[in-house]
Amino acid sequence: MTQTTNPLVFLEALHQEIQQTEYGQQPVELYEPIRYIMNLGGKRMRPLLTLMATYLFSDDWRKALKPAIAVEVFHNFTLMHDDIMDQAPLRRGQPTVHEKWNNNSAILSGDVMLVNAYGLLLDVETQYLKKVLTRFNRTAAEVCEGQQLDMNFETRWDVTEAEYIEMIRLKTSVLLGFALEMGGIIAGADDENSALLREGGINIGLGFQLKDDLLDVYGDPAKFGKQVGGDIIANKKTFLLIEALQQAQGDLKTELSGWLSATEFDKTEKVRAVTAIYDQLGIRQLTEARINDYFTRGFASFGQVAADPARKALLTEFAEQLIGRES
Amino acid sequence: MTQTTNPLVFLEALHQEIQQTEYGQQPVELYEPIRYIMNLGGKRMRPLLTLMATYLFSDDWRKALKPAIAVEVFHNFTLMHDDIMDQAPLRRGQPTVHEKWNNNSAILSGDVMLVNAYGLLLDVETQYLKKVLTRFNRTAAEVCEGQQLDMNFETRWDVTEAEYIEMIRLKTSVLLGFALEMGGIIAGADDENSALLREGGINIGLGFQLKDDLLDVYGDPAKFGKQVGGDIIANKKTFLLIEALQQAQGDLKTELSGWLSATEFDKTEKVRAVTAIYDQLGIRQLTEARINDYFTRGFASFGQVAADPARKALLTEFAEQLIGRES
Repeated sequence: MTQTTNPLVFLEALHQEIQQTEYGQQPVELYEPIRYIMNLGGKRMRPLLTLMATYLFSDDWRKALKPAIAVEVFHNFTLMHDDIMDQAPLRRGQPTVHEKWNNNSAILSGDVMLVNAYGLLLDVETQYLKKVLTRFNRTAAEVCEGQQLDMNFETRWDVTEAEYIEMIRLKTSVLLGFALEMGGIIAGADDENSALLREGGINIGLGFQLKDDLLDVYGDPAKFGKQVGGDIIANKKTFLLIEALQQAQGDLKTELSGWLSATEFDKTEKVRAVTAIYDQLGIRQLTEARINDYFTRGFASFGQVAADPARKALLTEFAEQLIGRES
Repeated sequence: MTQTTNPLVFLEALHQEIQQTEYGQQPVELYEPIRYIMNLGGKRMRPLLTLMATYLFSDDWRKALKPAIAVEVFHNFTLMHDDIMDQAPLRRGQPTVHEKWNNNSAILSGDVMLVNAYGLLLDVETQYLKKVLTRFNRTAAEVCEGQQLDMNFETRWDVTEAEYIEMIRLKTSVLLGFALEMGGIIAGADDENSALLREGGINIGLGFQLKDDLLDVYGDPAKFGKQVGGDIIANKKTFLLIEALQQAQGDLKTELSGWLSATEFDKTEKVRAVTAIYDQLGIRQLTEARINDYFTRGFASFGQVAADPARKALLTEFAEQLIGRES
């Protein structure tokens, strides 16, 4: 095997490819929101995973560039539509598409983004196309199922841990799994290895999402980027809240219910009080243990992939960054 | 060639296939609106065209069933999202999805319908898959472009005839063209014949949409199904109104502008008055001539397709029904 590539080479190639991607020209009202959301930035985590997976089995990782961008376009399509449904005003610190334009623009530009994602996937070699599209279709439907479950949970107070994990598996994790699996398929990996990549990606994704929930409460305000405690203020059903609801008894239960049903409250006080309840219940330690558990499982899958260890190290080092992240 | 099949056999097979199509199970909130809109009925014109096109070149028209349903699912996805954008309360006389459920349901169920359409297209034989998906992707983007133009036109009073024709070409006609083209490709037709089918479908589609505009004003109330004059009441920019705006001079122009800017009016009186203006300008005859022109061009394309005349007759007879329709 040749010397391993620096991950920055992947990122640089992705940035260049995103700049060169044509979504369409006329009417401008349809295509401008796509260029806007694609240029808001982000970690480009999913397409990076695809390139790293292709590189595990092939020097020619560049042939995965367009399909990798397809995953990023699909991800941003889900953000555009989710932001309408969640009435979110901001995305990466900038106005969301439906705020900057309007709901109709965000619906229709999102639709054509999904079409664009399929268009980029057509760059996959003919021999792998049907497999990639079949797996992508299943994944895309699952992401929609996850978003539907997330909306269903908003009006329910009896969501179990198992239901929550299933929701984030669908809404977030399967796309990370697909990004890796597709990278393998494109490089000619066999079913066993591409399934291991997918499985690893799903577990890393689960850990990643729980870390998201954790940072919202226990993140360093100087590093987190968003308001710490935002989920607590909004009564968002995170892993932490679901665990607390299941474990709290007696006075603690009464206090937690009180904060959840309060319509007028001091935000700082609510965040401090609910965090104190989490502390008493050991929710932080529980969540950290689950995160480590998912990451360990993910690494175990990656460990079994039959590929050059130096190239696998690129992938595991990247996954470790995702664990260690503080924002 | 074997004896030609009765078109009712195609329709029966389509109905059966639609009943058997699985869109997904859980969560039910996501998949129920899909079953609802797919069961509202409709002419099933697009999938019928696909089957007829396949039958032009192959006895095995049943291999086009799933791809034909893909076109119908895609069409109904556009209806579901367009109805949100247009705030339409009714579709085929029943509550629209966003009325029966809510906007978020209609957005998300629509998204997964688009994914489902691609899933059904994956039934196309591997040798034709990339070509079909490439053509479908271009068509799907064009349908979105047409919807965006239609929305743009709502706030403009200077829409030209050429702009209007381009809008309906994108919003309506290219999908009819694709339905036929795909039917040809699946049956192994060469590029020339599948392009003729597409071209013919686009022209029939343009005539079909102008007929829609015409029937809204001049349809027989006993047969039309919808309220005659609905477009006039809503100031909808149809072919008839755009022609009238361009041709009216002097008093007629003043009168037409008056009705268009009126905020309070008797609906029956407005319909009667604007229809009288159209009558004076000869808009009905002009529109009928354009419809005939498009249909003639469409039939000319079909005439050049190298296929069994008896089988072509099925297609042209069906197209003639579309011309003669009164609802």
